[in-house]
Parts: sequence; structure tokens; C-alpha cells
Amino acid sequence: SSAPAPIPATLFPGDGIGPEIAEAVKQVFQAAEVPIEWEEHYVGDQIDPRTQSFLTWESLESVRRNKVGLKGPMATPIGKGHRSLNLTLRKELNLYANVRPCYSLPGYKTRYDNVNLITIRENTEGEYSGLEHQVVRGVVESLKIITRQASLRVAEYAFHYAKTHGRERVSAIHKANIMQKTDGLFLKCCREVAEKYPEITYEEVVIDNCCMMLVKNPALFDVLVMPNLYGDIISDLCAGLVGGLGLTPSCNIGEGGIALAEAVHGSAPDIAGKNLANPTALLLSAVTMLRHLELYDKAERIQNAILTTIAEGKYRTADLGGSSSTTDFTKAICGHL
Amino acid sequence: SSAPAPIPATLFPGDGIGPEIAEAVKQVFQAAEVPIEWEEHYVGDQIDPRTQSFLTWESLESVRRNKVGLKGPMATPIGKGHRSLNLTLRKELNLYANVRPCYSLPGYKTRYDNVNLITIRENTEGEYSGLEHQVVRGVVESLKIITRQASLRVAEYAFHYAKTHGRERVSAIHKANIMQKTDGLFLKCCREVAEKYPEITYEEVVIDNCCMMLVKNPALFDVLVMPNLYGDIISDLCAGLVGGLGLTPSCNIGEGGIALAEAVHGSAPDIAGKNLANPTALLLSAVTMLRHLELYDKAERIQNAILTTIAEGKYRTADLGGSSSTTDFTKAICGHL
Ligand SMILES: CC(C)[C@H](C(=O)O)[C@@H](O)C(=O)O
Ligand SMILES: CC(C)[C@H](C(=O)O)[C@@H](O)C(=O)O
Repeated sequence: SSAPAPIPATLFPGDGIGPEIAEAVKQVFQAAEVPIEWEEHYVGDQIDPRTQSFLTWESLESVRRNKVGLKGPMATPIGKGHRSLNLTLRKELNLYANVRPCYSLPGYKTRYDNVNLITIRENTEGEYSGLEHQVVRGVVESLKIITRQASLRVAEYAFHYAKTHGRERVSAIHKANIMQKTDGLFLKCCREVAEKYPEITYEEVVIDNCCMMLVKNPALFDVLVMPNLYGDIISDLCAGLVGGLGLTPSCNIGEGGIALAEAVHGSAPDIAGKNLANPTALLLSAVTMLRHLELYDKAERIQNAILTTIAEGKYRTADLGGSSSTTDFTKAICGHL
Repeated sequence: SSAPAPIPATLFPGDGIGPEIAEAVKQVFQAAEVPIEWEEHYVGDQIDPRTQSFLTWESLESVRRNKVGLKGPMATPIGKGHRSLNLTLRKELNLYANVRPCYSLPGYKTRYDNVNLITIRENTEGEYSGLEHQVVRGVVESLKIITRQASLRVAEYAFHYAKTHGRERVSAIHKANIMQKTDGLFLKCCREVAEKYPEITYEEVVIDNCCMMLVKNPALFDVLVMPNLYGDIISDLCAGLVGGLGLTPSCNIGEGGIALAEAVHGSAPDIAGKNLANPTALLLSAVTMLRHLELYDKAERIQNAILTTIAEGKYRTADLGGSSSTTDFTKAICGHL
């Protein structure tokens, strides 16, 4: 019997520490015999007029074709006349939901135990419309756009996620007491979708109160769904509860079943090329990609190997208080597979 | 020698637990011989056409005349055709800066020690413009307005506060990487003001990163200044770090030297009238009012008495894990004066 054909997936190693942590993923995947064939794409050194950014059209086509990809940190080049790389990806691939699981890592102590929540962020509109202008000198405005279509889409995703992942509650985060029309529409859409999922408890929490509750007792939350900027803020807050962006996975879901997993931390140019970077966020993001491909066994095995390595504490990178190199930490993970 | 004439100050006891905690303030002030004469005003039961809200014109006139006031929680009556009480106060009195000191209370344990920061929130514009409309069916927008005037004014207040309160650093919180024009203008104003205060360190922190840093290590911050919605979010987050809105003071600064201190927690109708409410937030807010009046000795004495009572732990209200009544807790504070 011949082996099944490998599944093609796009890989953006990204900048700075990106190539090193991407290498870690490749090694762990190889050790775990994951049937993935990587198609690597790098950020260009010139603006591609077809994307108006340093991302090439070919690299976006690769994700569109494969429907699945993994992305390291990308440092948006400084200068005018082009779009941010992250925003270009979201726009061009219509990545409408950003999903960030956030859980306490056994053995890695922070002020919080037993955090286990999922933030689901609308990723295409809201405060990120890019529509801003000067009204008169000294008076500027920016437009927050909320649509029924995008709100229903992300709410659907959140409830479906909750149902298929054994979650019990969805909290919609908002400021509809102030932005009655925009956040009001977002809530209306969430309520409509909630009706179709009677087995999932639905609640609405005002964002300021949500942040206070999160720092007092994050166990109060399960799945959180929210407009773009609130998701940006709350997902980082939640990452902070369990140790920061170096430890938390992220996955973007696009129209047509696209999943682009990504490490949301920076490219850390100061330690780039020094074999010091922590590949955990990219590895755990790769795990979410495997789950999206329904390769549950591989996903589980790899996640366990990562968590066990961190829990044992013998091999930890400097950001976690250890002195391991990226490669030694990666080898330790492979040893636990 | 005759006693100096008492200083008139407006008091809005507010709703729910408001009258009980306002009574606590009156008693503590009396015990400490604070030369304040309260002018009490209640929220009306009808809309005053001159304010379009349940707040009477006379009550606003009282604050304008006295330039100093204290406000308990107000439950905005449900129904249409009137403005929220909090927003009416901010608008009518032009309360442009909301100042919230946030510090760990000795002896009251949370996950964080040694929090000691000040959030200063622009309180009149930004996402609170109230300008929203439906563009087409299913597409709504709201306008965030940032003006040079309001940004300079709150930045000035923040730097002046830092300087006069022995603070070393001001961090401007923003999302100018996305909202380049609006948050960009806010930052530009902060930079202009920063130049006039070379002795104060100035930095800019993106809001998502700020929230992550706050939950990981709040000691990284000193004074934070920011647009309206970010201030709403971050001030509640910070309150959560030290125990919640029941323990943290707040003071609103208006044009012409107005200071309206307020407890920002809710009116807690479930425990209203039961002598169970914790008056700490209103008491500490009253202390900020005394500082504003330059009654520093009284302010210091009262604050110490409150903190000592909480630290000793013998008299604590139910929300702090004790079983004292509001009046016993208040008596204990008076005993420490
Ligand atoms: C880099 C920035 C544009 C981006 C955002 O604001 O969405 C980042 O904070 C994120 O969460 O991916
Ligand atoms: C009640 C609400 C309108 C208010 C606000 O959003 O400003 C509150 O959260 C606050 O911080 O005072």
C-alpha cells in the first residue's frame, strides 16, 4: 500500500526570527510524520502592484489554492505607498475570523491558573476600515463600519466552533451602550445566531466590564466573540494572562474554508539568527492548522509533546527563564513525540 | 478667631446604594472636621427639558457655581428620549479629563502587588461622539472624532498632573498603526506637550500591547493618557488588578477648574438600603476632591484612615470577604482619624 499523497500547505517563514521558528515547525512535523508538503513563500523586496504590498500575488495564490497555510512574524517595511502585510493578507484572503485559543500551560507559572478560553475576533471591518479624513484643520474622524453580513459570519463561526469543540458558552463583547447602532447591529446578529444554538449559553458583556472580569477571574469566560478592535485588545490581554504572545496560537479563517495559522508575536530582530527564539507560538499555531485539516491525532501528539517539554522545564528558551537554544528545545519536543 | 467659612460642594448621592455610601462620606468628613458644606441634589423623576435628562438644570448649576462636587452611582432610567446621566454630566459640565488613581490596597490581597498608576482619559469625544447612522440596510457606521483642542487639553492635564504629583513618566496609549489620522493626531498633540515637560519621560504604547503589559507587569506604568474608549477599557482593567470598581476612586476635571469626583461602580440595587454597601470608592473619590481643593492634610488623614481600616481587616464589607455593615466600617474609619 502506498502512502497517501501529501497535503500541500503554504508557509510564510516571515522576517527576523521567522525562519528559525519555521524550521522548528518543519522538524517537528517531520518527526511526527505529518503528511504536509510545504510551499514556502517569502515577503518580497519590492511592492507587487497586484497586491499593493510587499506580499507577492503568487504567495497569496498559493494560500488560495492550498486553502491552508502557516505564517511567521512579518515586519512591515517602513515607508509610504503600500499596505501593511498583515492587513493585506486579511483583506486579500478575506480572513474574516481570527481565532485565538488561550490556556494556561502546565508547569509554566503566571498569576493565573486554569485559563481556558477562546477569543474569536471579526477580522475585516469595524475600526479597521481605513476610512479616515480631516474634517477641518484640527478635527479628524475615522469610521467604524459594522455590517450585518460580517457580523453574522463571525457569529456563525463562533457558535459553530463552540458546538464542535465542546464549549458551553459564547459571550459577545461590545460597547452598545455607547455605540448603539454599530455594536447594536453586531449584538443583533449574535442574538439571531444564538437562537439556532439553544444548547450554547449566550451572554453579552460590555468591553470595559469584560476586561475587569478577565483580570479578576478569567475562568468566568469560555468563547468570546467580538468586533475587530475589541478582539485585538482582548486577545492580547488574554495572551498576557498565560505568558504572552510567544506562547499563544492564532488561526485566521477565510471564506471558502481557508485557514491561515500565524504566530502573532513580533519578528524580534534583536535575537534573530542567534538560535534563541521560542518557536512555541508558531508550533501551537501549526497545531491549530492540523486540527483544521482534521488531522486530530497528529495535532494532539504534537501539542502534548510541546506542553510536556515546557512542563518538564529542562529545555526552555530564554523568554521562559531557561537557557536552551531554539534547536535544543525543538529536539526535546521531537523526543517526546 | 472665628472658623473659616465652609466651602460649598455639590453632592449627588445617586441611586441604589448611593445614599448610604454618601452618608458614610458625610460622617467621615464630619469626624475629620473637613470645612465642606454639602449642597445635595437628587436625580429627578422627570426629564428636565433644559438638560434633556433626568438631571435637573439646578443641580448642574450647583456644580458650576461650586466648581467642586461628589457623585454616587446613578442608574440611568430605562426608556427613550433622554440622555444617559453620566454622559449628560460630562457634556454639560465639559468634564474633559477622567482621572483614576489605581493602587494596591495594603492588606487586601489580589494577584498583583504594588500597582501604582494613574489613568487619564479624554472624556468628551472620540468613540463617544454619538454620531452614528445606517449607510444602507445592514451597513452602519459610527464616527470617532479626535480634535486637536481636546487632545492638547487632556495631554496638558496629564503632564501637569505628572509633574505636580511627583510622577516620572507619561505613556500615551493609542492604535495609530491602524487609525493613523485620529490616533495619529492624538499622539501628535501628546508629543507637542511632552516637549514642554523635559523632566517627564514620554512614551507611546499601542493599546493591545499595553493591555498585555498591564496584566503581566503593571509596575511598568506610571501615568497613562488616552482617548475616550481606550480610557474606558484600560481604567476598568486597572481597577480589576487591585480589586475592582468598589475600591478605586475617580475624578472628572472640567473647564474652568471644575472637579467632579465620582464612584464609578454601579448602584447595586440588590443590596440597596441593607447597610451592606462598601463606601470605599466614594470615600477615596471624596479624597481626590479634597486634594483638588488643596486640603492636603485632611485628604491624607482620611485616606490613611480608610487604608488602615481595610489593612487591619477587622471591619470589612461583604464584597471584601468580611461581614461588616456599611455603618460599622464607617465608624471604624472615623475611629482611625
Ligand atoms: C500589527 C497590527 C496591525 C495587528 C492588528 O492590529 O490587528 C496586530 O496587533 C494583530 O493583532 O495582529
Ligand atoms: C456607563 C458608561 C456609559 C460609562 C462609559 O462608558 O463611559 C462607564 O463605563 C464609565 O466608565 O463611566
